[in-house]
Amino acid sequence: MKTQLYSFWRSSAAFRVRIALNLKGLDYEVIPVHLLKGGGEQSSPDYANKNPNRLVPLYTDGTNTIHQSLAIIEYLEEIYAKPPLLPQTPIDRAWVRALAMDIAIDIHPVNNLRVLRYLMKNLGVSADAKDAWSQHWMSLGLASLEKQLSSDSRVGCFAYGDQPGLIDICLVPQIFNALSVKLDMKSYPTLMRIFNECMKLPAFIDASWEKQIDAEGSNPLAPPQE
Amino acid sequence: MKTQLYSFWRSSAAFRVRIALNLKGLDYEVIPVHLLKGGGEQSSPDYANKNPNRLVPLYTDGTNTIHQSLAIIEYLEEIYAKPPLLPQTPIDRAWVRALAMDIAIDIHPVNNLRVLRYLMKNLGVSADAKDAWSQHWMSLGLASLEKQLSSDSRVGCFAYGDQPGLIDICLVPQIFNALSVKLDMKSYPTLMRIFNECMKLPAFIDASWEKQIDAEGSNPLAPPQE
Repeated sequence: MKTQLYSFWRSSAAFRVRIALNLKGLDYEVIPVHLLKGGGEQSSPDYANKNPNRLVPLYTDGTNTIHQSLAIIEYLEEIYAKPPLLPQTPIDRAWVRALAMDIAIDIHPVNNLRVLRYLMKNLGVSADAKDAWSQHWMSLGLASLEKQLSSDSRVGCFAYGDQPGLIDICLVPQIFNALSVKLDMKSYPTLMRIFNECMKLPAFIDASWEKQIDAEGSNPLAPPQE
Repeated sequence: MKTQLYSFWRSSAAFRVRIALNLKGLDYEVIPVHLLKGGGEQSSPDYANKNPNRLVPLYTDGTNTIHQSLAIIEYLEEIYAKPPLLPQTPIDRAWVRALAMDIAIDIHPVNNLRVLRYLMKNLGVSADAKDAWSQHWMSLGLASLEKQLSSDSRVGCFAYGDQPGLIDICLVPQIFNALSVKLDMKSYPTLMRIFNECMKLPAFIDASWEKQIDAEGSNPLAPPQE
């Protein structure tokens, strides 16, 4: 069976795995899961049975099924060593994982679609206050990343050296999100330089929002339709 | 230099690393960082210089400094192999990492102290609505974990087999949090069985809230004082 990835075009977590699969040169089929339509296809009994945490991505090679983007990427790294997405030494691996998690744990989850929906639907937060929420957590996290990446000698063309890896994989989807809520990016010149470097590569371009079979609308940076 | 861990007694992320260090039998000095007092010691210039993401934990062995709890634990696992906190095969490692991330990514960050403070201070959310928020995300995530752990043959005395590992390390602090917001735990019998098994072990007991040098109050499950 062909490798399959349950994905939503705008999901940052799915976007990360799409980039990793592309960088590893692996062939895969995207199976769209619409996170908003009709309350979200991720909550359908069929999908929830496959993935009890009811989120994307979900990776399957026919034998093994894995959820959680970073767990999938660590698995791909262990099975398909080349090109490496993590450094060779434990301390550099720790540094790369920590910065990737600064994005995947400290920035992204609080700005996830389901959290923004809860803010608006359950707490009655206005659209403006919801955007301010996103901008607050993103600017806090991106400032920390900018500080770390602007002053570390391990940074090269990409976040770690001159080959794209795990930090870049997490950074690019996060910057798509930041641009979609119109965050002013001029405080993050290092992040934007790395982002622009990544977006020259087919692995990143082909994984991006507008290239997905389930992408919606003429402007992929507009808010998604429910 | 002795290994040091910048920690806050109630921080789930610091709690994870305390358990991991204890399980590995490593000696370390706890340096308390009060996350609430005076707006939070994690934002002091001195600490923010050490850890730009302004969170705990921060681990240092004198040479290397690492932030992000899961990155620290992966590093400890690479440097100190025994006892292992991750399984031996890539697919089982992926499963364990995914379930650990179900907690560390999907449950914990939205219930972090700084997020709850923002809800109350910036969005004017009531204490009751804040607790409902915590209960919502915790019950959603714990139900998914219960489903996965109640039906998988890899589960033993602990979440993976008969030795404590990464899932248990993430689960125990999360259950402390759930108990502190008075979440009804009767829907999670597998999780509570594993929790109770873990809490028989000195590695978990010694890492817990009430054993910390910075623990406050006679009832460690009461809300922390600002």
